[in-house]
Amino acid sequence: MEQNLRIPGPTPIPPEVAAALARPMINHRGPEFAAIIGRVTEGLQHFFQTSQPVLGFPSAGSGAMEAAVVNVFSPGDEVLAVTIGVFGNRLAKIAEAFGLKVTRHEVAWGQAADPAQVVAALDALPNAKGVLLTHNETSTGVTNDLQALAQAIRARRPDILLVVDAVSSLSCVDLRMDEWDLDVVFTGAQKGWMVPPGLAMIGVSARGWAATEKATLPRFYWDFRTARKSLEKGQTPYTPPVSLYFGLDVALGMMRAEGREAIIARHQRVADLTRSRARAMGLELFAEPAHASNTVTALKVPAGVESKALTKALREQEGVVIAGGQERLEGQIIRIGHLGYVHEPDIAACMDALERQLGALGYRAPAASGAEA
Amino acid sequence: MEQNLRIPGPTPIPPEVAAALARPMINHRGPEFAAIIGRVTEGLQHFFQTSQPVLGFPSAGSGAMEAAVVNVFSPGDEVLAVTIGVFGNRLAKIAEAFGLKVTRHEVAWGQAADPAQVVAALDALPNAKGVLLTHNETSTGVTNDLQALAQAIRARRPDILLVVDAVSSLSCVDLRMDEWDLDVVFTGAQKGWMVPPGLAMIGVSARGWAATEKATLPRFYWDFRTARKSLEKGQTPYTPPVSLYFGLDVALGMMRAEGREAIIARHQRVADLTRSRARAMGLELFAEPAHASNTVTALKVPAGVESKALTKALREQEGVVIAGGQERLEGQIIRIGHLGYVHEPDIAACMDALERQLGALGYRAPAASGAEA
Repeated sequence: MEQNLRIPGPTPIPPEVAAALARPMINHRGPEFAAIIGRVTEGLQHFFQTSQPVLGFPSAGSGAMEAAVVNVFSPGDEVLAVTIGVFGNRLAKIAEAFGLKVTRHEVAWGQAADPAQVVAALDALPNAKGVLLTHNETSTGVTNDLQALAQAIRARRPDILLVVDAVSSLSCVDLRMDEWDLDVVFTGAQKGWMVPPGLAMIGVSARGWAATEKATLPRFYWDFRTARKSLEKGQTPYTPPVSLYFGLDVALGMMRAEGREAIIARHQRVADLTRSRARAMGLELFAEPAHASNTVTALKVPAGVESKALTKALREQEGVVIAGGQERLEGQIIRIGHLGYVHEPDIAACMDALERQLGALGYRAPAASGAEA
Repeated sequence: MEQNLRIPGPTPIPPEVAAALARPMINHRGPEFAAIIGRVTEGLQHFFQTSQPVLGFPSAGSGAMEAAVVNVFSPGDEVLAVTIGVFGNRLAKIAEAFGLKVTRHEVAWGQAADPAQVVAALDALPNAKGVLLTHNETSTGVTNDLQALAQAIRARRPDILLVVDAVSSLSCVDLRMDEWDLDVVFTGAQKGWMVPPGLAMIGVSARGWAATEKATLPRFYWDFRTARKSLEKGQTPYTPPVSLYFGLDVALGMMRAEGREAIIARHQRVADLTRSRARAMGLELFAEPAHASNTVTALKVPAGVESKALTKALREQEGVVIAGGQERLEGQIIRIGHLGYVHEPDIAACMDALERQLGALGYRAPAASGAEA
């Protein structure tokens, strides 16, 4: 049975990208790879909306988190970690592991961070060197208003470093690295980029580059400076994940053809469809609706339904693969990914299947929504 | 023109593996991936010749070097770095970057390390916690006698940590992790494993595991303990490079069918063929013949030939891609990779092309060898 992969990453691979993955291997120090990394960098700059080079690392998204921390900070540096879920906490944990003095501004899961409250938290930390932010929190299906957060923080602290986890937002949701004055922005190939996992991409601002020169945390593999120097020669310091670059090159070509704004609009449409179908079934969003994510929808598991039984039935009976909740949300929510290579029919099929399997598990939508469905 | 990719990694991908790379994406936390990582781990254990779990990280080989250093050592720890070329130096540099006290035992490039001399160097370091060794030095085409080195070191220092860079040797050349009592052994998918780059594999001994508990260097992404805990559930802590696991699963199946000893014998044969063809052309090995590598052959560029012109002509006229020298060997040597998916006809075609293009560049073999050719 063909799968409808509806987890928030890895995301489905378009056939054109899949074909590229299987291309014969090439020399990563030769002219062909240099041409590819040149095109890829230019494409990434377009989607990051930056004039800065965007670095690629063979890595998961969590490696990019570590790279961000070790390149711009020094032991003992104070940072404010704005956490709204599992991935915000992970970034904070990494900063702590590397000896930063981390103050957490923890927002209730399901909510977005409030710019005024973040600024208030920052006011209590006059020596803070940086703020760690999540653009889209994959664990709760919440998108922070990054532009408003960045603006509020920057107005108060013009020189502070803004580190942004954009793993599950970039290319799907508007993010303007230069205009919003963000310093380190990272994402992963397996999310909006329609490529298998294993390649992290990181943009660094002029302020970020200056910070890399002063930062004293030990680093080698993640060193942004080495990566930039190699990129100028059309290379990477260490062997790049060549097949993923083949795929990303093709994916970026498809994305440029569709257009950045059109992709953002498509993600809005599929997210709207997901949410309206869920509401029609009487299901409740986990996220506060005003900040519900356009790349992943978290839904509360209705009373009387066992979430593992539901995801298993969807997988085995319908070929629809969705995610459960993480950590303290295990069993509480299900998560439907709608980012990257996703269109309305994929979501319609997923929600049809969800409706059937919820019914099979004894769930009955409340009267009002039932009628709507 | 189809390429004959004869660099020492990335190496050519068999069609069966290429097809696997293009498979539809799956949930990395689901039962299908758990089955794959289970089979892959068992296959890796067979080739590492270890009963320990072998960990996979989305990473280049250099990331595995960093992982080895940060997991088993603490700042200020003394180590002996036995370096016989570029990659030995890189491992030493990483150890230094992370605050270890590194003493280098530098061997002239082209030579292998001598066990007695290594032990003598170690005798001068009574507090050394570890020895950093390269099994096969890709930059010089030299294979250390790892068994003899390990035996000599272990006889003198039963509890010292042996960290082994086996990136370009493992699966091609005999390496018995448990029998030789090695502690941290790492390799990369793009070498003998016939898979595109982006996945590093690391074996850790019981002594190595004990060291991870005491080590105090900051670590998160590379943490062996987190990786082992996830592996026990058929997962990885962070999103794995799923398509590369698809490929490795198929590659390991092919390798098991061919057989470990048969693969080692095949690498011996193709290396012998490479060397005998080179000798017949009057070309000189860069490596001392007794330790010439079975996975990469470094040849001195004959007088009067410009190495860049030669590699360019091979690439453009013949579709044969070989590597030049690195760092101080740039322009001095060419390197021919023969590891992974390689058979006699690939080498015969490569050496035929080399002979033609050397001739086109004005090279004439000395009389004796010319006759042989």
